[in-house]
Amino acid sequence: MISTWGESLKLTIFGRSHGPSIGMTLAGIPTGLPVDLEQLQHFLDRRAPGKSALTTPRREADVPQFQEGLANGITTGGPITAVIENQDVRSTDYDRFRNVPRPGHADYTARIKYGQEADLSGGGHLSGRLTAPLCIAGGLCKQWLEAKGIVVEARLSSVGCETDPARFTTQIQAALDAGDSVGGTVSCVVTGLPVGLGDPHFGGMENRIAQIIFGIPGIKGIEFGSGFAGSCQRGSETNDAFQVENGRITTKTNHCGGILGGISNGMPLTFRVAVKPTPSIARPQESVSLTKMEPETLEIRGRHDPCIALRAVPVVEACGAIAIYDALLSCKGELLWMN
Amino acid sequence: MISTWGESLKLTIFGRSHGPSIGMTLAGIPTGLPVDLEQLQHFLDRRAPGKSALTTPRREADVPQFQEGLANGITTGGPITAVIENQDVRSTDYDRFRNVPRPGHADYTARIKYGQEADLSGGGHLSGRLTAPLCIAGGLCKQWLEAKGIVVEARLSSVGCETDPARFTTQIQAALDAGDSVGGTVSCVVTGLPVGLGDPHFGGMENRIAQIIFGIPGIKGIEFGSGFAGSCQRGSETNDAFQVENGRITTKTNHCGGILGGISNGMPLTFRVAVKPTPSIARPQESVSLTKMEPETLEIRGRHDPCIALRAVPVVEACGAIAIYDALLSCKGELLWMN
Amino acid sequence: MISTWGESLKLTIFGRSHGPSIGMTLAGIPTGLPVDLEQLQHFLDRRAPGKSALTTPRREADVPQFQEGLANGITTGGPITAVIENQDVRSTDYDRFRNVPRPGHADYTARIKYGQEADLSGGGHLSGRLTAPLCIAGGLCKQWLEAKGIVVEARLSSVGCETDPARFTTQIQAALDAGDSVGGTVSCVVTGLPVGLGDPHFGGMENRIAQIIFGIPGIKGIEFGSGFAGSCQRGSETNDAFQVENGRITTKTNHCGGILGGISNGMPLTFRVAVKPTPSIARPQESVSLTKMEPETLEIRGRHDPCIALRAVPVVEACGAIAIYDALLSCKGELLWMN
Amino acid sequence: MISTWGESLKLTIFGRSHGPSIGMTLAGIPTGLPVDLEQLQHFLDRRAPGKSALTTPRREADVPQFQEGLANGITTGGPITAVIENQDVRSTDYDRFRNVPRPGHADYTARIKYGQEADLSGGGHLSGRLTAPLCIAGGLCKQWLEAKGIVVEARLSSVGCETDPARFTTQIQAALDAGDSVGGTVSCVVTGLPVGLGDPHFGGMENRIAQIIFGIPGIKGIEFGSGFAGSCQRGSETNDAFQVENGRITTKTNHCGGILGGISNGMPLTFRVAVKPTPSIARPQESVSLTKMEPETLEIRGRHDPCIALRAVPVVEACGAIAIYDALLSCKGELLWMN
Repeated sequence: MISTWGESLKLTIFGRSHGPSIGMTLAGIPTGLPVDLEQLQHFLDRRAPGKSALTTPRREADVPQFQEGLANGITTGGPITAVIENQDVRSTDYDRFRNVPRPGHADYTARIKYGQEADLSGGGHLSGRLTAPLCIAGGLCKQWLEAKGIVVEARLSSVGCETDPARFTTQIQAALDAGDSVGGTVSCVVTGLPVGLGDPHFGGMENRIAQIIFGIPGIKGIEFGSGFAGSCQRGSETNDAFQVENGRITTKTNHCGGILGGISNGMPLTFRVAVKPTPSIARPQESVSLTKMEPETLEIRGRHDPCIALRAVPVVEACGAIAIYDALLSCKGELLWMN
Repeated sequence: MISTWGESLKLTIFGRSHGPSIGMTLAGIPTGLPVDLEQLQHFLDRRAPGKSALTTPRREADVPQFQEGLANGITTGGPITAVIENQDVRSTDYDRFRNVPRPGHADYTARIKYGQEADLSGGGHLSGRLTAPLCIAGGLCKQWLEAKGIVVEARLSSVGCETDPARFTTQIQAALDAGDSVGGTVSCVVTGLPVGLGDPHFGGMENRIAQIIFGIPGIKGIEFGSGFAGSCQRGSETNDAFQVENGRITTKTNHCGGILGGISNGMPLTFRVAVKPTPSIARPQESVSLTKMEPETLEIRGRHDPCIALRAVPVVEACGAIAIYDALLSCKGELLWMN
Repeated sequence: MISTWGESLKLTIFGRSHGPSIGMTLAGIPTGLPVDLEQLQHFLDRRAPGKSALTTPRREADVPQFQEGLANGITTGGPITAVIENQDVRSTDYDRFRNVPRPGHADYTARIKYGQEADLSGGGHLSGRLTAPLCIAGGLCKQWLEAKGIVVEARLSSVGCETDPARFTTQIQAALDAGDSVGGTVSCVVTGLPVGLGDPHFGGMENRIAQIIFGIPGIKGIEFGSGFAGSCQRGSETNDAFQVENGRITTKTNHCGGILGGISNGMPLTFRVAVKPTPSIARPQESVSLTKMEPETLEIRGRHDPCIALRAVPVVEACGAIAIYDALLSCKGELLWMN
Repeated sequence: MISTWGESLKLTIFGRSHGPSIGMTLAGIPTGLPVDLEQLQHFLDRRAPGKSALTTPRREADVPQFQEGLANGITTGGPITAVIENQDVRSTDYDRFRNVPRPGHADYTARIKYGQEADLSGGGHLSGRLTAPLCIAGGLCKQWLEAKGIVVEARLSSVGCETDPARFTTQIQAALDAGDSVGGTVSCVVTGLPVGLGDPHFGGMENRIAQIIFGIPGIKGIEFGSGFAGSCQRGSETNDAFQVENGRITTKTNHCGGILGGISNGMPLTFRVAVKPTPSIARPQESVSLTKMEPETLEIRGRHDPCIALRAVPVVEACGAIAIYDALLSCKGELLWMN
């Protein structure tokens, strides 16, 4: 069960939703980079649960303890390890799902793959709670990118079929009232990128971003630029004409999402991800008892977000920042003009 | 410019569209696996150009020469290297694009990243022609998967906005007649998978498949199971109820596309990709002279597919097969019951 | 500064000698493996400082706190993270070496590579103290190997030119009395290995073991089987004749150290490493002031082992165990008969 | 059976000693680097067989055909693939060893690991002949390093117990006359390195070089700087005093072999490897029939080098060059002052 990511970085996330702690180890970071812990906490707070009536009432302060890798507010160059102690753990909520797997969750596949012994309650290591360590790593990368003028910003772009932000709350509340949940999409834009980031074929910007983004539980799709909508169009509509603008080459449109041949073209890099509805819903659901091999109706009484897309926004931003910072570190002197 | 992929496999694709040859090296293959070269050629022929009025008239036999890795019709266990000699090369077609980059192509980004010296005519190493080596590797993996009862099948699922296969030809012809091109989508289904393939977080089946699929030029999106459509729905609609069927646990629906928590659940694994319209179109397009830094109108007279989605079908199948075979090889004894 | 190792495992060691803590994250471990923490502590105590008059008087209990990865005494399958809090830290001992680098240490190279800002006192992340996390990982791997009948054992095989263990203490004391230090060698034997572990070329057992062993500070050489002595001999002397013994194929001698073509042959795997004398010695040494670029005499008053080979013994054992366990996990079903 | 190496480079070597060809694919090379093919051939000729009475009479021109990756004498930036056709193949020489493994060779371990089916005659993929592709990759890296003032040079430093070059020929002839073979050592020096190459712990220069060097068949040991001899000494003897020399910091001696804490210190990087005697000798040897599980006497009549250390010299040089060029490419902007 490898939980390590990166070409130049080596990011490992660890811990379990209902174990003592969660955390991350991030190796491969240059020495001497400043870290603003207050700003990082502010970023983590965007993901933390218990912030509104529309997120899980589980309360977690999510304050990372940096075991190592920082000294006097800068990176030492060694791996950075940070740990968040779990506080509001109610593992017994999850005991039943060991035998009667929840639809839409990893209970069944994890049980078959890892066996009965492993403490995988609440999804264990496969839980959405592991997105907090992703946000620690991503929050750090965001700061280091911003110091180079590169900004990564995500936003909730739809809830259910609704794309008007003014009505997102109503949609989520309606799902909650129905004992149900609802999906959504998150859009992300990265500005300030140089031309030339990414490698062709398997090292393209799409490949890199997709590989880490699908590490967020519940993500079931990703598209860059015009994406699926572009597949309905003609080349004369989706090709982006080149122009000279203030002495720089830009494109008049940005249907390619800032990526040509896997390589950044200097325009904003844009992508959108599909987030499935929270699989934990209050309504009774059909499942199976693994010991009896008989149908069994399941009712999930735990504490759950009615729309995980809402809290996925900073996580998408974090993963985007990690992927881009790793691609930047992986450039072999090609981008020296950038400084 | 790394062109190597895989966890247990190490696949490297090499060559240029208008250089002497293209090919691939595939390391990490077990010894003693049989290879049916006739069946492989049949698979490669599905991708090869010049087969109909709706694909590029460039004619390439695309017969791989296996330099090494096979002996007496079985794998030796050493790396497999195969080379396809390019035959119908007209590099002069591409000379102009060195200075006036084609919209929608990698000419501009490759020029900035790799400089003027590199022979990147016709997209060079970044060309769609490099999908032929992908199909050699994928065609081999398909055979080895089929021997274990695992079948990977892709099909063209839309052309432009059209989803009725009966009308695909008309759509493509219309684009061609208009001096234009058209996008499409390709759907892929993998059957016969065991439960337990893939790892959580960064090693999930979605992550693995997405990472290689975006290595196909022109792919701008991927979704698994219900994907983007599922993000418009509620949890009660997208959750797949478990049931017991002939002594096995299955799900009544398959909105998750056969993947829960990154791990295969034994149901068909399904995904769909968005292919952009061929960027090379006959119509005049706006570009820029890189030497003069002035606008310049570009007309592309080369030989091009009006709808690359059509020929992407076997390539998607190939990439799916490579990703799944690599995931299977990466299982550490967890799936032993499978044999 | 990547500090991650492994093919199937991903081991990251973190922390600094004179920072708040040191530790490790070990990903890729199967689920459900039992861990005996008492036995692990016993192993760590073999490396811990302050145990005799012949090791550094720095006192560190070196008790790892497992943040995650274990539950109810077995592995969860997720990454294992353990942290050791540093207790006896005297960073001021090291302030001077920032400007006047100690001969034989990494002060100078680290300063040039990582700059002045990084807190690299006492060697920082490059310190020998980072071998404690190596011993956590190695101690775990040793237990899991022993459960399969594979035993890794290292011993001090020379101190200075002395190879008689009875006189090692005298040698070390003599060096200490002279305000000096002394080198040594450590020999390691692995028994119980199956035939077939390791891969040819870059994945051979020699390659794997050497790559991690040189991660131990102060190791300057490694040899397998007859090693350098064998290079003085003839083929008729170093070839190991095959024989049938109790229905198994063995070799009459073991000059190859249990490895043929990079692959284990079922005989004991043997290697020996050269450990340089501790570079920190009491005698005045010639160095240079980096600010003044002038010669400067350096006296090191810190607390140091007169013979690091002594404490390297369990660390060599740990690294051997990690390399072998990783090679075992990396076998793709070839060794199934082993269970 | 992974045969891929490198952090920034991805080198794959392929082929079999008695198959149709051998070759290599080298990915990750920057674009626009010049290649002198004549100089490369000159380097390959140093390793090629049939050059003197003291090497195997097998005759191979060893002229690589570059399939791809070069255009107009410079690198394209895509993977470089080169193939050498085997000419003087006598596979029947090897048929017998499938059943009666040669002592000191990989016949037995490969048979157990890869099974009977694989064509592993003559060592197959595990043969010393695969060092020719290593020399193609290494010869290229040597040229690119030399363009930066970095020179890698190896020499035969002993044959048997003899260290006087004047008597090497006599030693080898004596072994040959006795139907025997003899071992030796090869020493390598790298000059012109900047300070700061390599990473601490697992990415140190010793780790990197050792990992690739043990990919050369017959290498059983490696030491850096004073190595094993240094382990017999005291710290006051092995520490290298710093000095200021022409405005640069150097060391008065170089016992550390140019590496401190895994990182180059700007002094010559030195290492020495132990090469075992050629395992193929004319004398009868004891082996075992794998089918009958009975002792059997083996006589090897093939064509063999009496001292593989002799031909290992350029291979060691090649591997050193590859390791150093990869380390250089892996520097993340830390060494920019170097240009």
